[in-house]
Amino acid sequence: MMDEIYLDNAATTKPFTEVVEVIADCLTNKYGNPSSLHRKGIEAEALLKDSREAVARVLGVEPGEIYFTSGGTESNNAAIRGIADSYSNRGTHIITSKVEHPSVLRTMEDLERKGFAVTYLDVDHTGLIDLEQLKNSIRKDTILVSIMGVNNEIGSVQPVEKAGQIIKRENPLAFFHVDGIQAFLKIPVRPKDMGIDLFSLSGHKFHGPKGIGALYCRKGVNLRPVQTGGGQERGLRAGTENTPGIAGLGKAVEIYSQNHYDYNFRMKTLKEMLKSGIEQRIPNIRVNTPGGDNGAPHILSIAFRGVKGEVLLHSLEKHGIYISTRSACSSKQNKVSGVLSAIGLTGEEIEGTVRISLCPFNTEEQMLKTVEAFDIEVRNLRKMFRR
Amino acid sequence: MMDEIYLDNAATTKPFTEVVEVIADCLTNKYGNPSSLHRKGIEAEALLKDSREAVARVLGVEPGEIYFTSGGTESNNAAIRGIADSYSNRGTHIITSKVEHPSVLRTMEDLERKGFAVTYLDVDHTGLIDLEQLKNSIRKDTILVSIMGVNNEIGSVQPVEKAGQIIKRENPLAFFHVDGIQAFLKIPVRPKDMGIDLFSLSGHKFHGPKGIGALYCRKGVNLRPVQTGGGQERGLRAGTENTPGIAGLGKAVEIYSQNHYDYNFRMKTLKEMLKSGIEQRIPNIRVNTPGGDNGAPHILSIAFRGVKGEVLLHSLEKHGIYISTRSACSSKQNKVSGVLSAIGLTGEEIEGTVRISLCPFNTEEQMLKTVEAFDIEVRNLRKMFRR
Repeated sequence: MMDEIYLDNAATTKPFTEVVEVIADCLTNKYGNPSSLHRKGIEAEALLKDSREAVARVLGVEPGEIYFTSGGTESNNAAIRGIADSYSNRGTHIITSKVEHPSVLRTMEDLERKGFAVTYLDVDHTGLIDLEQLKNSIRKDTILVSIMGVNNEIGSVQPVEKAGQIIKRENPLAFFHVDGIQAFLKIPVRPKDMGIDLFSLSGHKFHGPKGIGALYCRKGVNLRPVQTGGGQERGLRAGTENTPGIAGLGKAVEIYSQNHYDYNFRMKTLKEMLKSGIEQRIPNIRVNTPGGDNGAPHILSIAFRGVKGEVLLHSLEKHGIYISTRSACSSKQNKVSGVLSAIGLTGEEIEGTVRISLCPFNTEEQMLKTVEAFDIEVRNLRKMFRR
Repeated sequence: MMDEIYLDNAATTKPFTEVVEVIADCLTNKYGNPSSLHRKGIEAEALLKDSREAVARVLGVEPGEIYFTSGGTESNNAAIRGIADSYSNRGTHIITSKVEHPSVLRTMEDLERKGFAVTYLDVDHTGLIDLEQLKNSIRKDTILVSIMGVNNEIGSVQPVEKAGQIIKRENPLAFFHVDGIQAFLKIPVRPKDMGIDLFSLSGHKFHGPKGIGALYCRKGVNLRPVQTGGGQERGLRAGTENTPGIAGLGKAVEIYSQNHYDYNFRMKTLKEMLKSGIEQRIPNIRVNTPGGDNGAPHILSIAFRGVKGEVLLHSLEKHGIYISTRSACSSKQNKVSGVLSAIGLTGEEIEGTVRISLCPFNTEEQMLKTVEAFDIEVRNLRKMFRR
């Protein structure tokens, strides 16, 4: 069988072997309900505690400020809807950007229907927000600013720390939520130093399992729960805790955080290799991902003019290479990517854009093969579809 | 080490070995994002399809009517909040019972705060609703009736089929939701024959994993989603699908449904053995679970007068026996059980109630040991705490 070259790690990652082991052990042995009063309950509760501490340690926050959810989308919904629900008496204005993930944008649209006013910040040609525009958008009745840490389609790293300073200076009562789903463990995040009140993360983006995420919610921020019931997660998130998922997430956090410098350096190196290889071999392209520290280590978005991204994706499958067109969450919808429009791409460029996303276990050899495959397939497709 | 006798299966169950294998395989090999367009995405999507079909088959409904959620609490929230959100223009009256799970009751209370009127049906001394009262409670502006299939604390089986007939006769526009978390696979449920529009279930109650559940939502019922984003689960439930959880749930449904007659008969036999053993050996008790078909096969609730349930629970741990006081979800709250009050227990009886809940893998030998242990410990405690 042909070797697989999995380059769709922004969509989802392969869990660490140790994560699979922890999950299997939890399912087989530590299967108690953490709310049960007997030994098997206490054993299960200990898993929650360890995992919560692992997440808190990486963010430099208190374990009591970490809430487990069913994933990134739930974390974003819980943060945004929770603030809107709890603080609408203070004001009904919210600020976000035009390049947020659908779990933020669709939620904002829902809040607009419910009477909230939402300002959508523009971005420049590399996907970055303008801090001046942010500053000017903050009003007395602004209750929430929600900005992503790393863009999921093109990898731009937003100036979250500066944004936090501006928000807290302009309106200390406005809360700052960061969708950190692509950012967590990939770029440095210290909520307490960055004015971040709420931070979302998702297990399956860093070699943990799917179906589990977390939300950092600063002590003192009062979120109305979106899901009510048995009072788990200190009342914020009812429902029997997903102990295998939580234990798996904790293990992934532990492994990734112990190696994050190596991992991220490695991905950055591979990304540069891939990028310059493609730039050298293939003409008439546009690299959408910003360079240097403005680009996340794991995401590379490139527009191949004169080529259809989806066709290119399937052509690369013949080489065992898996990439995506933009983001998995929107890949089956026929709408044009809002992110790619927002950074000013032409229709042809939008159509020709693919996203390559790395993990620390990709190799230099895979990068060479990928450059080669891109060269062959882009050349082929351009020949076939020449007007 | 002492053999463990796990009798807290209504709180959570030990996953089938085959479920653990399916989950490990999914995490290790089929780790793609179902929304990805390449082979690894398609492979992951196939897992969703198989599991959805397995659930649909058991309920006798269309696979397209099954939505995966993060668990029973989310299913109940999605059903109740979804109907309230979508159909409040038709009316704002909802009917439920006094013995529902907190994920229903707390959600109803939240809706009351938002202006809905909720009627809470009484129950008799065995926990059963009165169909006459249900009939008289249905109004023109009733949009939803939510009744559980099997009570989680005492195991009463509600007359769901008759309730469905009454609801559809009195107000064909009112939707009928059944919290089937303790009922699914334990008692026969055919939504299409029973007037059920929405049905909630949870994976970890039948030897599947935690963190995954499903909602049957009849075609034509329009639920406003509680979680918005990438449009997964046909827009009802955004977020990357928990493929390992979904595959594990599907496998558990497959195994349990192939054996449900044997499994349930076995549990019923063991339960009767336990009940008559305790009744013969221990005086001054009250069996809270109704007999015959009015009691679920797996739950036995008994009040030991003159004993504190929590103390008894910990005494039994010395014998390797794990039970619960009432339900795991409320065991850490100091409130008096609403269910036990509703069926008319005295304070002493409420205090002395424990729940024993079985699985098909418990044995007759375990039942004999459990009767013996109860006899010893209840006797001891009654001696120690005699007034």
